[in-house]
Amino acid sequence: MNSATTESIKNINFFNFFSQETLKKIEQRASITHHPKGNLLFVNEDQADHFYIVKSGWIKLYRETIDGTQSIIDILTTNQLFGETSIFQDDTYPYTAEATEDSVVLSLPLDLLKSEIEHNTKLAMTMMSSMARYRKQQDQEIENRTLKNAPQRIGCFLLRLTEQQENKTVSIRLPYDKTLVASRLGMQPETFSRALNKLKQEIQMTVQGRDIIINDVQELVHYTCTACSSEYPCNDLH
Amino acid sequence: MNSATTESIKNINFFNFFSQETLKKIEQRASITHHPKGNLLFVNEDQADHFYIVKSGWIKLYRETIDGTQSIIDILTTNQLFGETSIFQDDTYPYTAEATEDSVVLSLPLDLLKSEIEHNTKLAMTMMSSMARYRKQQDQEIENRTLKNAPQRIGCFLLRLTEQQENKTVSIRLPYDKTLVASRLGMQPETFSRALNKLKQEIQMTVQGRDIIINDVQELVHYTCTACSSEYPCNDLH
Repeated sequence: MNSATTESIKNINFFNFFSQETLKKIEQRASITHHPKGNLLFVNEDQADHFYIVKSGWIKLYRETIDGTQSIIDILTTNQLFGETSIFQDDTYPYTAEATEDSVVLSLPLDLLKSEIEHNTKLAMTMMSSMARYRKQQDQEIENRTLKNAPQRIGCFLLRLTEQQENKTVSIRLPYDKTLVASRLGMQPETFSRALNKLKQEIQMTVQGRDIIINDVQELVHYTCTACSSEYPCNDLH
Repeated sequence: MNSATTESIKNINFFNFFSQETLKKIEQRASITHHPKGNLLFVNEDQADHFYIVKSGWIKLYRETIDGTQSIIDILTTNQLFGETSIFQDDTYPYTAEATEDSVVLSLPLDLLKSEIEHNTKLAMTMMSSMARYRKQQDQEIENRTLKNAPQRIGCFLLRLTEQQENKTVSIRLPYDKTLVASRLGMQPETFSRALNKLKQEIQMTVQGRDIIINDVQELVHYTCTACSSEYPCNDLH
């Protein structure tokens, strides 16, 4: 057994529902891998043998169109899981995973997850709850891309970084560089720049590289959330 | 026990995994309700006591922004389920359900679904597979709204109605009126009209009310699917 693995797994609620026996087996077969920036962990529709936990760095999940454009599905960091839903998709990955900066991931055997979930209803319920939460977030994302304009979509992204504080002034730091934020929001970098400038005209905020100060959270809420079916603080995060 | 209920349930794969005992209880407590066009079955965040199967008509699922704009989540017809994921969301509905034309639905007790799923791993696995499939469709929808232009999004909607035929010429019928198709695709009616006209310039097709003839499916595939990470026939439908 590997103490780094045990430590990683212990931090994640999902694993509290595994039987001790399976956890032990998972730990024995777990491995830690290092991925330099740009490294592909797997490609969309590859045969899936493992699921993963990010230990450090950032992992981008995406699919690619025939003409080579990336459609970003998610960008994950420490303690987030990926690849686990492959067990419901004929054991193939439903997206490509790429390290967007030097990253360390824990790689775990998918067959053990599958057999555990087939026999453990508590774990199945936990996984379904998490899938239902994700479904609501995706509904929200579809809505955002349709009903919010580009500055409002940036506003929404920023509000989600405030940890739902209702303080007047909040300092936040973009989790990754602006180009990546743009693609996470489904925007071209130029659109993102223009939209960020527009947002700065609409509300009082200071942007310095990745550091952002929002002078009055309620002002941003008012600008952003009127075009949303959810109210701040956002209930799809829970 | 009600024979109409038994008949409805038998048609849906999902119910094959229920225990006979629970099925019997569900049937005893099932009821059939009629909803005239415009009727609300429930509202987003209402307390959820039932889940539903559409028997006939069309049910629109949506959320509403503070300024009153609808964000359509799905439009369902015969044999499709809704409201079932409420069991993972504190027993509240995650959307509003409205009959978009006169509709008949079967209403089933949510508590029985919940207790069955907590004890029946086969059913849980089936539900998770269905949620994973839905997740992939949502990823695709997010991608569509970002990378496809409006005529391509209409093209994608039409291709999904061809039942994935690869014949040269295909006749299809829009499942509901154009205004509803527009909102399903997240477009204003005017945008939809303009985009449909543009599509008619790009590929050979005839539109007469809700009836559409596509002269050459491959031509539509070529126009639409180059901006997509999926290839026709679409694997997210399976």
